[in-house]
Amino acid sequence: MSSNDDFTIRPLRTFAAAALLACMCAAPGAVAAQELRDIRPSEGPLVLQSRGSFYVGGEQVDKTAVEIGDLGPDDQITIHQMYVEYMVPDGASKVPVVMVHGATLSGKTYDTTPDGRMGWYEYFVRKGHPAYVVDQIGRARSGFDQSVFNNVRAGQTPPDEQPSLLRLGDRFGSWTNFRIGPEPGQPFPETQFPVEAAGKLSRQSIPDLLGTSRASNPNWKALSDLAWQLDGAVLLTHSQSGPYPLESAIIDATGIRAIVMVEPGTCNAQVHTDEEIATLAKTPIFILFGDYLSSPTKLPGPSWEDRFNDCKAFKERVDVAEGDVRLLATADTGTRGNSHMMMMDRNNLQIADLILAWIDEKTSR
Amino acid sequence: MSSNDDFTIRPLRTFAAAALLACMCAAPGAVAAQELRDIRPSEGPLVLQSRGSFYVGGEQVDKTAVEIGDLGPDDQITIHQMYVEYMVPDGASKVPVVMVHGATLSGKTYDTTPDGRMGWYEYFVRKGHPAYVVDQIGRARSGFDQSVFNNVRAGQTPPDEQPSLLRLGDRFGSWTNFRIGPEPGQPFPETQFPVEAAGKLSRQSIPDLLGTSRASNPNWKALSDLAWQLDGAVLLTHSQSGPYPLESAIIDATGIRAIVMVEPGTCNAQVHTDEEIATLAKTPIFILFGDYLSSPTKLPGPSWEDRFNDCKAFKERVDVAEGDVRLLATADTGTRGNSHMMMMDRNNLQIADLILAWIDEKTSR
Repeated sequence: MSSNDDFTIRPLRTFAAAALLACMCAAPGAVAAQELRDIRPSEGPLVLQSRGSFYVGGEQVDKTAVEIGDLGPDDQITIHQMYVEYMVPDGASKVPVVMVHGATLSGKTYDTTPDGRMGWYEYFVRKGHPAYVVDQIGRARSGFDQSVFNNVRAGQTPPDEQPSLLRLGDRFGSWTNFRIGPEPGQPFPETQFPVEAAGKLSRQSIPDLLGTSRASNPNWKALSDLAWQLDGAVLLTHSQSGPYPLESAIIDATGIRAIVMVEPGTCNAQVHTDEEIATLAKTPIFILFGDYLSSPTKLPGPSWEDRFNDCKAFKERVDVAEGDVRLLATADTGTRGNSHMMMMDRNNLQIADLILAWIDEKTSR
Repeated sequence: MSSNDDFTIRPLRTFAAAALLACMCAAPGAVAAQELRDIRPSEGPLVLQSRGSFYVGGEQVDKTAVEIGDLGPDDQITIHQMYVEYMVPDGASKVPVVMVHGATLSGKTYDTTPDGRMGWYEYFVRKGHPAYVVDQIGRARSGFDQSVFNNVRAGQTPPDEQPSLLRLGDRFGSWTNFRIGPEPGQPFPETQFPVEAAGKLSRQSIPDLLGTSRASNPNWKALSDLAWQLDGAVLLTHSQSGPYPLESAIIDATGIRAIVMVEPGTCNAQVHTDEEIATLAKTPIFILFGDYLSSPTKLPGPSWEDRFNDCKAFKERVDVAEGDVRLLATADTGTRGNSHMMMMDRNNLQIADLILAWIDEKTSR
């Protein structure tokens, strides 16, 4: 038995249990079992002042029985509420950090990595920051409006008006678009992604129930509300959610002490007015990319190099307004091999340290 | 400021922050803000040996670009994987407990209550049990098959074959069916449910993406697999998931040391063969109901009294097979006012103690 097993397999109580373990690798459940057995021992007790979960926002709406889903009578429900889980370390004195995941993922992104190591959620807490992890509205434990789907089912709306339930696939979405390797199943030689666990990344993926063509995104206001409720927080976002804090800050920057955008899908360099750019210039912003930016995604849409260049153009606009934007590709610092999912990469804690140092610098004033 | 605020509102740094707080109740975000501010201070540090999350099971399937959701090319995805989060207390020596939520809810059910008190997840951990909270497959952070929806959108499947996205509404689902009161907005005089937070219960609700008419439920096997991976666990279920452990035990009872069914939607008294009942007779089972069982649900389907009587008939069958089923309505013990959501009721920790005592008795042998 490897030391990894010590965490999950408690002392054997009986011979039957020993026999069970002995045949574990051959048992039908073996692949699934590996998920739990992979988890590495923790690096010492975690002492929390508090932990828990709550919701931000949400909209109470009246719905028909059909829209709610055939259980009736007509009733009221809440939609578009945002789920937030949190941990506050004992003796916390540092600024809270709110973590937001990317497309077709959930708050799970920042927890235990696919190969069973500590994620950024727990690491930031161990470093003294209260950490708040959300599920984007339209995903996971957060709300969405199911009437859009039930109305199609009932023949009240044409099928093609139903949102597409987007999910990235394993071969191109996860492997080439997330820059684990140039081709599905073929890793970059220096990749930091735990490739033996690449298949498990897919288990973390769930579709986006808001669809892909929304103009105004309810997550923007929920995040500025959350930062405000926390009396000041750093918004740390990834990929799809990368640019959300820019919109949140334009709505209300009161609670937003700093913004960290990890591999944003876009920086919307040309979208904002000069007045909006002037607003954004008041908040320190750190934009972080990994390696292999010019590797083809094999999906429609911009390359990662395009996205980096868009963020460069965004930085230039904010620089003119005397703002504080740091734009960094980790590969340019001599750290090779970071993928799009750098919170899961083997050097995820090293990248976290880079972010934590910047946060401490920008929020200790 | 009440003492509740101490938890979330850190020392005021500036006059501006003081002014902000002063107008908090009148600000547009005030209702949302209350969610976080409601949270009660913790009863002392929580010391964890470890915590994190992982997935159980899941099925890798090939899907077309249409089925995955318009992002191409054709690819492979994982569906029907079960999300599990866990906390292991420092010095844990007691049996792990797996908690499963009910219809149109998620694992959030067992965390912070709608009015901001500690839920069963943390309480069981504080009492020395490793606790594992899942999202049902088809809900929240667990997977489902989005191709069923995307095929309807693409005109490849008739709309009426799309699963209904079920959600209980606030007035009848939450209030009358969950037995907070006899009519929406009118509580039972002795109700234990924190009625001032009844509206917030709705924020925890999200639709079931598996639909309602599935014959074989992938959650059954995932739960027996999880119990097996844990080398023995108690399965604690609620409402819709109430009867799941019976099916899990019939699939493979190896890891299931005891079963706690809190207000099960059914006990399927007449569904199982005598051979299956003989299997179920090998595992201790505790079935727990609250108060006001004869109050009308105002929804189609059986009353809660019908459900209790079904569980009574189930107990009688297992008794004949010399099994160990305890069936209890808390009202019969002199504790009045428990709702269907007893893990959120004001006396939720008292009910937890009742369950913990039974678990300790049945698993300490």
